[in-house]
Amino acid sequence: MEERPITWGSDQAGKSSACQGCPNQNICASGAAKAPDPAIEEIRQKLTSVKHKILVLSGKGGVGKSTFSAHLSHALASDDSKEVALLDVDICGPSIPKIMGLEGEQVHQSGSGWSPVYVEDNLAVMSIGFLLSSPDDAVIWRGPKKNGMIKQFLRDVDWGEVDYLIVDTPPGTSDEHLSIVQYLSGAGIDGAAIITTPQEVSLQDVRKEIRFCKKVKIPVIGVIENMSGFVCPKCKNTSQIFPPTTGGAQRMCEELNLPLLGRVPLDPRIGRSCDEGRSFLTEVPDSPAAVAYQNIVQKIRDYCSSHSTPDDPC
Amino acid sequence: MEERPITWGSDQAGKSSACQGCPNQNICASGAAKAPDPAIEEIRQKLTSVKHKILVLSGKGGVGKSTFSAHLSHALASDDSKEVALLDVDICGPSIPKIMGLEGEQVHQSGSGWSPVYVEDNLAVMSIGFLLSSPDDAVIWRGPKKNGMIKQFLRDVDWGEVDYLIVDTPPGTSDEHLSIVQYLSGAGIDGAAIITTPQEVSLQDVRKEIRFCKKVKIPVIGVIENMSGFVCPKCKNTSQIFPPTTGGAQRMCEELNLPLLGRVPLDPRIGRSCDEGRSFLTEVPDSPAAVAYQNIVQKIRDYCSSHSTPDDPC
Repeated sequence: MEERPITWGSDQAGKSSACQGCPNQNICASGAAKAPDPAIEEIRQKLTSVKHKILVLSGKGGVGKSTFSAHLSHALASDDSKEVALLDVDICGPSIPKIMGLEGEQVHQSGSGWSPVYVEDNLAVMSIGFLLSSPDDAVIWRGPKKNGMIKQFLRDVDWGEVDYLIVDTPPGTSDEHLSIVQYLSGAGIDGAAIITTPQEVSLQDVRKEIRFCKKVKIPVIGVIENMSGFVCPKCKNTSQIFPPTTGGAQRMCEELNLPLLGRVPLDPRIGRSCDEGRSFLTEVPDSPAAVAYQNIVQKIRDYCSSHSTPDDPC
Repeated sequence: MEERPITWGSDQAGKSSACQGCPNQNICASGAAKAPDPAIEEIRQKLTSVKHKILVLSGKGGVGKSTFSAHLSHALASDDSKEVALLDVDICGPSIPKIMGLEGEQVHQSGSGWSPVYVEDNLAVMSIGFLLSSPDDAVIWRGPKKNGMIKQFLRDVDWGEVDYLIVDTPPGTSDEHLSIVQYLSGAGIDGAAIITTPQEVSLQDVRKEIRFCKKVKIPVIGVIENMSGFVCPKCKNTSQIFPPTTGGAQRMCEELNLPLLGRVPLDPRIGRSCDEGRSFLTEVPDSPAAVAYQNIVQKIRDYCSSHSTPDDPC
């Protein structure tokens, strides 16, 4: 007899055999967990000053989500007339403080909420990394606590007037993803940029993330393929280190009818600039990877310009 | 005023401002969630037939945990006298079925529980991937449902007599990690193999995972550095694609007084064999990466031989 847990509908919450022994079994079974959180409306009001909200997603870890989020933010903020905010909701693995060169910075509280940390006048950052006493501190939290932190980031941070809010996420389709979508359901999300690498093992997880977007009605802006070939610095030969055995992101995008925003080659200078907290785009602006990034960012700018946030996307 | 959520102790469960609006607030505040789960004892009894239990952990995604777990299992099972089991607790991003060449396989139920899927007579695999109707299906579950699934994998799977149970985990230090450690607290865990890549951005998350191990009293068997240099197939020049800007895993291991089990170079044939569901170790046994893997596996065998599981490690 075959078991298919995916058929456990939410009507089974608290009633399934897997729920036995869970202290929350009764509350789930009662349906009390389904009541809407009042924070959704508070967040909608708080974020009326934020024009565009973009999620950076990937089913798989280590494909370059945080690197992309950081460099998308840097690139958007290179236009002095734009205000950019970067929110890291990877609660257990916050890489954004290091990549943005902000390690050791702390969050301060004012009358209007938590003040984010500023990289430049027009580039604000918030991450749980700023709330830890050491960058090595582990945040050993189950879902509800992570969700509470994400709620606080959205409701209690004083972002001010912002053109673009970029949200960097952890891998998967679980608490952080459901919470960010739920809490932003009143404020509205413009869309999601999906990151992958060329291998099928990565694309498989990315297809799951795309299904997630469909399920929660978040438009997919497009797909970015990272680590797309490596040019040997000595002989200029290109190697496919993570080979696109099933056609890479291009074939997946064709099959799913999604835009491929671009491909970014592997470049050791990207990893180095992330470790050192500097923008790769200003360090080596003429490199093929930086040029690819800038083209992708322009497509995202164009998407946002032509896109008006629906009143209630969820 | 500085906010440090890390100081929220468990005595604050259900009482913190982040808990407002959570339907489980009252049950957490009442302390009812602290009662031990009877499944821990059931799992202890079920797993008396399993000699060694090894977790494969990393704070960061995409560093090669599943690749390592799969190849550790293949290598251990190459000794016909050993029975090996591989459990994938990455509920939202299960890569193990593809890497083990088992896509499309299904789990069957017998009188003694769920039967795992066998790669070979002495190599059994269990993953949520076997329970999905399509490999692209997304498992959009919050923590409690993921924890319920992990409980079922440990309590309800009929593993039989097993020498080594390898547990592949998702990135982070959250529900899956806390649950696997909690549910195995009666049965005992031999130790954890920690996977990283050479960059500081990865090592930072790995240090968090090592703190997690200390906190939950899981011994660290050692650290494996993946993606440690790439040899150009044309000119044989070695490039550090993910540069060890802070000394890589070696310096971290020296600082934390942990064994470095080995370094595995980047090799496109590893990614290709994972996509195609074949063992890299038998495909190209003489490659430097396969030799590095075999040396690491031998160190893990030696660790297990010299190690007797304590009665109650937690």
